[in-house]
Amino acid sequence: MISTRLTEALGIRHPVLSAPMALASGGRLAAAVTAAGGLGLVGGGYGNADWLTTQFAEAGNQAIGCGFITWSLAIQPELLDVALARKPQALMLSFGDLAPFAPQIHDAGVTLICQCQTMQHVRDAVEAKAGIIVLQGSEAGGHGMSRATLTLVPEAADFLASVAPDTLIVAAGGVADGRGLAAALMLGADGVLIGTRFWASEEALVHTAHHAAIMASDGDSTIRTTTPDVARKLDWPKGFTARVMQNDFTRKWHGQEAALLAHQEDEAAKYTAAFSAGNTQDAGVWFGEAAGLISSIEPAGVILERIVAKAESLLSKAARFVVKSG
Amino acid sequence: MISTRLTEALGIRHPVLSAPMALASGGRLAAAVTAAGGLGLVGGGYGNADWLTTQFAEAGNQAIGCGFITWSLAIQPELLDVALARKPQALMLSFGDLAPFAPQIHDAGVTLICQCQTMQHVRDAVEAKAGIIVLQGSEAGGHGMSRATLTLVPEAADFLASVAPDTLIVAAGGVADGRGLAAALMLGADGVLIGTRFWASEEALVHTAHHAAIMASDGDSTIRTTTPDVARKLDWPKGFTARVMQNDFTRKWHGQEAALLAHQEDEAAKYTAAFSAGNTQDAGVWFGEAAGLISSIEPAGVILERIVAKAESLLSKAARFVVKSG
Repeated sequence: MISTRLTEALGIRHPVLSAPMALASGGRLAAAVTAAGGLGLVGGGYGNADWLTTQFAEAGNQAIGCGFITWSLAIQPELLDVALARKPQALMLSFGDLAPFAPQIHDAGVTLICQCQTMQHVRDAVEAKAGIIVLQGSEAGGHGMSRATLTLVPEAADFLASVAPDTLIVAAGGVADGRGLAAALMLGADGVLIGTRFWASEEALVHTAHHAAIMASDGDSTIRTTTPDVARKLDWPKGFTARVMQNDFTRKWHGQEAALLAHQEDEAAKYTAAFSAGNTQDAGVWFGEAAGLISSIEPAGVILERIVAKAESLLSKAARFVVKSG
Repeated sequence: MISTRLTEALGIRHPVLSAPMALASGGRLAAAVTAAGGLGLVGGGYGNADWLTTQFAEAGNQAIGCGFITWSLAIQPELLDVALARKPQALMLSFGDLAPFAPQIHDAGVTLICQCQTMQHVRDAVEAKAGIIVLQGSEAGGHGMSRATLTLVPEAADFLASVAPDTLIVAAGGVADGRGLAAALMLGADGVLIGTRFWASEEALVHTAHHAAIMASDGDSTIRTTTPDVARKLDWPKGFTARVMQNDFTRKWHGQEAALLAHQEDEAAKYTAAFSAGNTQDAGVWFGEAAGLISSIEPAGVILERIVAKAESLLSKAARFVVKSG
């Protein structure tokens, strides 16, 4: 067991949250992570009320949380009512203006998690009275920005220590094993949020061909790009990019975004068909740099137990590096 | 004292190397880092023989190392003779083909350090029989690529454990304090190489106005760009970019590289004059994301002692996170 302020606040055994990955993080994954001692988050994403209701049902009796893409939630704000009605353990907002939603979450007595990619985001999250701030580095799969986890976490920790010391700190982006968890705790985090490693789990809603693709990839295999969003006709706010596997699609269109936009209707149809079919070359394959640390698809609970066991071992033995000066 | 395979191999007290930053890392800085228990590296950069000789002389009796920009060294290979004649503790190669230089370094009995930005670079460094491999993440100041330290270090550690287990592993990019050093050890590194934090030291060859600029910056203040290289007429190999402070120069030219190239002669003169004058808006100001962790310019020895003391404290207490399951 690894005990931190995060495990105490959430009443969990291990300081590990699973990322609410749009489309991939359903109720089964979230429930498996919670059952193994972490906290699983369903990905509200660009979802609809039926999907969200189904996923909460899939989680059964396990206590889970839920995460939204904030700018997308602003288009369908009623989804927040659907989620809050299920009494989630926490509600996470990423990528957008927090002000329209934070008061409703606080009023429901639900812990607000805000995912931040810059120090400006951190200041906004403090303003919104976030209980937990996730610092997400660019190494993460899916959407994000350019700051790295290794610098963003300690810088945010220093800032929060001075202005909002009770705010809990979670590191995200590039954490896939016990080494990453132990490192995050050294940087000042109270825990981690893990995406790619749980994307590569049996419970994730991911095509088997995409799972095969991550096992064949190393950490050099990904790219940050806006091309999957252009092809999906998703109007992401400026500054956000998506980390996906490099493939025929990204090689054809990255750097040619204006041309892709000009052919958007045709390309959107092709992209959607390819993604549904599990085609790994003509659609986005959504994983991060941690691909280089992943060589198996296993149950999420097995993955989580291994992460924690390795971190326990590293932390227990860390003092061996320190030697009295002679 | 922090003891690792790196301190044992190099006979140093702390597993900390100072980066051989072109123009900024002279003999005084390198000597100060060595005197404080690490290993200082002079930045051979785009240098010339006279500069290099002067800097080795400035280091006095301290045992130091030297680092080169490999593609630039290929243009003036005689600089390697100059450096090896001074019997450096280690010779570091970054950014380019290792094959033309590795044999001469091995023949001189000098430890070869290879800085890598991708897993392909790591495979090349193993081929060149590097004794120490530096994994440099994109959060670093100055030149680099896109992988993050947090994923590159453990991925390289796994690879090296299987193919070259005696190769030492050093993390670089984003490490500026004891938290970063402790985190790097958890990731599987044997030590760290620190640039930006030593750039912000009294001994660094950096204009006081540039030092003032880093103290006024946070980690969001930088950008990766090729614009300073275009303005300096430096023909960096494709794929490498430089992390510098965002300023009037980068805002004007980033994304307008073709236009900058078209005005290269005029702009080169302006850039050079601005840099020499310590102008912080019209030339590159060379620091990384770790700017957000730096708020003082101090002697390098004071900086190093503080880094080590903090890491010792974190590592000594790390076992407190681990609790027996009840």
